[in-house]
Amino acid sequence: MFVTHLECSKCRLTYESERIMHLCTCGAPLLVCYDLDQVKNAVSKEVLGTREPTLWRYREWLPIRQDENIVSLGEPMTPVIPLRKLGPELGMPHLFMKDEGMLPTGTFKARGAAVGVSRARELGVQVLALPTNGNAGAAWAAYCQAAEVRAVVVMPADSPAINQKECTITGASLYLVNGGIGDAGKIVTRAVEEFGWYNASTLREPYRIEGKKTMGLELLEQFSWQPPDVIIYPTGGGVGIIGIYKALEELRSMEWIGEKLPRLVAVQSTGCAPIVKAWREQQKESQFWENAQTIAFGLTVPHALGDFLVLEAIHKTNGCAVAVSDQEILEAQRLLAQREGPFICPEGAATLSAAMRLAEEGWITSRERVLLLNTGAGLKYPETVQADPPVLEPDDRLPDE
Amino acid sequence: MFVTHLECSKCRLTYESERIMHLCTCGAPLLVCYDLDQVKNAVSKEVLGTREPTLWRYREWLPIRQDENIVSLGEPMTPVIPLRKLGPELGMPHLFMKDEGMLPTGTFKARGAAVGVSRARELGVQVLALPTNGNAGAAWAAYCQAAEVRAVVVMPADSPAINQKECTITGASLYLVNGGIGDAGKIVTRAVEEFGWYNASTLREPYRIEGKKTMGLELLEQFSWQPPDVIIYPTGGGVGIIGIYKALEELRSMEWIGEKLPRLVAVQSTGCAPIVKAWREQQKESQFWENAQTIAFGLTVPHALGDFLVLEAIHKTNGCAVAVSDQEILEAQRLLAQREGPFICPEGAATLSAAMRLAEEGWITSRERVLLLNTGAGLKYPETVQADPPVLEPDDRLPDE
Repeated sequence: MFVTHLECSKCRLTYESERIMHLCTCGAPLLVCYDLDQVKNAVSKEVLGTREPTLWRYREWLPIRQDENIVSLGEPMTPVIPLRKLGPELGMPHLFMKDEGMLPTGTFKARGAAVGVSRARELGVQVLALPTNGNAGAAWAAYCQAAEVRAVVVMPADSPAINQKECTITGASLYLVNGGIGDAGKIVTRAVEEFGWYNASTLREPYRIEGKKTMGLELLEQFSWQPPDVIIYPTGGGVGIIGIYKALEELRSMEWIGEKLPRLVAVQSTGCAPIVKAWREQQKESQFWENAQTIAFGLTVPHALGDFLVLEAIHKTNGCAVAVSDQEILEAQRLLAQREGPFICPEGAATLSAAMRLAEEGWITSRERVLLLNTGAGLKYPETVQADPPVLEPDDRLPDE
Repeated sequence: MFVTHLECSKCRLTYESERIMHLCTCGAPLLVCYDLDQVKNAVSKEVLGTREPTLWRYREWLPIRQDENIVSLGEPMTPVIPLRKLGPELGMPHLFMKDEGMLPTGTFKARGAAVGVSRARELGVQVLALPTNGNAGAAWAAYCQAAEVRAVVVMPADSPAINQKECTITGASLYLVNGGIGDAGKIVTRAVEEFGWYNASTLREPYRIEGKKTMGLELLEQFSWQPPDVIIYPTGGGVGIIGIYKALEELRSMEWIGEKLPRLVAVQSTGCAPIVKAWREQQKESQFWENAQTIAFGLTVPHALGDFLVLEAIHKTNGCAVAVSDQEILEAQRLLAQREGPFICPEGAATLSAAMRLAEEGWITSRERVLLLNTGAGLKYPETVQADPPVLEPDDRLPDE
């Protein structure tokens, strides 16, 4: 393992990494730092290319000391799919989608859980707790069960039923709250203080982001280390985009990629767009978004602890932030399924809506390589599709097509 | 492409492969034959190891002439996960599960659809139709949309809602029937005859099985070409087990594996077990199963066209056939989730039930390497889990763990 220490993402105070740490004394998230020269000596692009197609191929960039602490449900490399019809139709002939719906538990949350739970186990954690809008809870529940760590999950009462069922079948301790993810977070904070559990809330421990980072490492390898021009990411808690940015920075520092980074675009829903608002107002941090409500449930994060890191990633890469409506999201979801086949989640569909708008505005040009991140399978969002097919009797005949 | 011809699986009559073909004149399915010497010359195990981790790495074993006809939604290699806790507990220390739930559309049906639709497009098909219990319909709908082939899907009215929604969002023509998959099949047969559509029903075209075959090729590569001792497969229409057996035969013929094949086990539900019944009665074909009913919806196939091929595969590999109850299936599904993490489909869980019974009976010994095939994600079967978590108010406290 090449981890050297932990560093505050805001005040840059450093901490040692071999004991359980949460936030900096200043209240900001801690980031994991590596000796990247040693990483560079330990692995080459060629060697990487011969490894198993899972996120653990990026072993040298990950914060696990002993292999035996790795908890894996078999995370495959998720495909980068060229949108061969839709791209040209929308003025983006080089449009791609990385489909994270093929990970365990059906979403990108598996990356954070795989690395986060592995490290928690390595640090001796026996009980962890987290608030969630649903998908992260389901992923952490599954990995905790594999790791024999007790998981306590708290989610809003109106979170998707499938996520509640995923937590239930694994045997995690699941609670609902009449409120939003912020209320769930407060319940977790109180319990963690009272019982001494490990707080696995978004960015309150430093290792989930390292799992999400593998999205960036993986997509760069899939693009043969030639970064696309634009990466569009749906942004709730923001760990995905922060993780991708961290991957880009580490690879640039190692000179595995050049100086020019992709422009990172954060997409939110008009029903909950604190980061877009802050971006437009040129603020470095966001404000709490009142009455947050969107069909893209994973984006219902009224105030993200890492808001300033998302804004920094956008700013430093000359990116931007875009809010799209639920109506646009559902249209984009259907458009993608009908033109290209995949049934994606609304959060992922939001990136297509954003790309369409940015191409129309000329912010994306037709020469650019544009990558959408679909963060999960549409299978987890059955309520986004209404089906009302005709019902036949066994002797009935079909009409011609 | 190394396809030489098509051959009847029963009477061995041969047909040319470059025009649209369905069943043999004798009524049995046709199988695709290859010049395996040429395949052997064209690819080595070493070269294979360097290819992209998708089913298209087995290009030489697939019946697509032109690369541009390939329709892909980015099928990743699905992981083989060692069941490190459950295996030893159940007296099978070398117990593995290949998790097909990570394919597009969340089930192994994506393999058959990827290859079947690609070949249909190559042969000039514009409209295809198929009956389905749900998952195959969803997969073929998605791949057809990508291929610009019209899909007409007919499924039982009580098939899972998610599959209906998947067909709907892609824009396939979906019909329900008040009846079972056999009734859906009859409606499709009539329409195919009337309108000249391509019949994509199970084993009525020769190419779906070639996609399923990649399950076998892939698992053999993942086992470093040392076949496991036992492979346990949930059997509805039977294409999966037939495909795996075909892969084994082709690899043995190429001398990529030795003479000894894994014992293949077909698992059905006690609510629909025609193949198990035929196996016990030492019949070569099965009889229609009246009042078929099981929570493992994909196993609700009262009479499979390829029953004799399944029975032959079991017989020739010294395998067996096992029926397990819905109660056992649901218990195995929960056991797997609670001990190992993954939330699998009931069809997949049936293989664990079967393994437990076969180990108890001594048919599987503790030295043997045993592979379970989980054919899909539990996410597609929300009705198999009841969740009733406590609901808190924002000021409530959690109990200790």
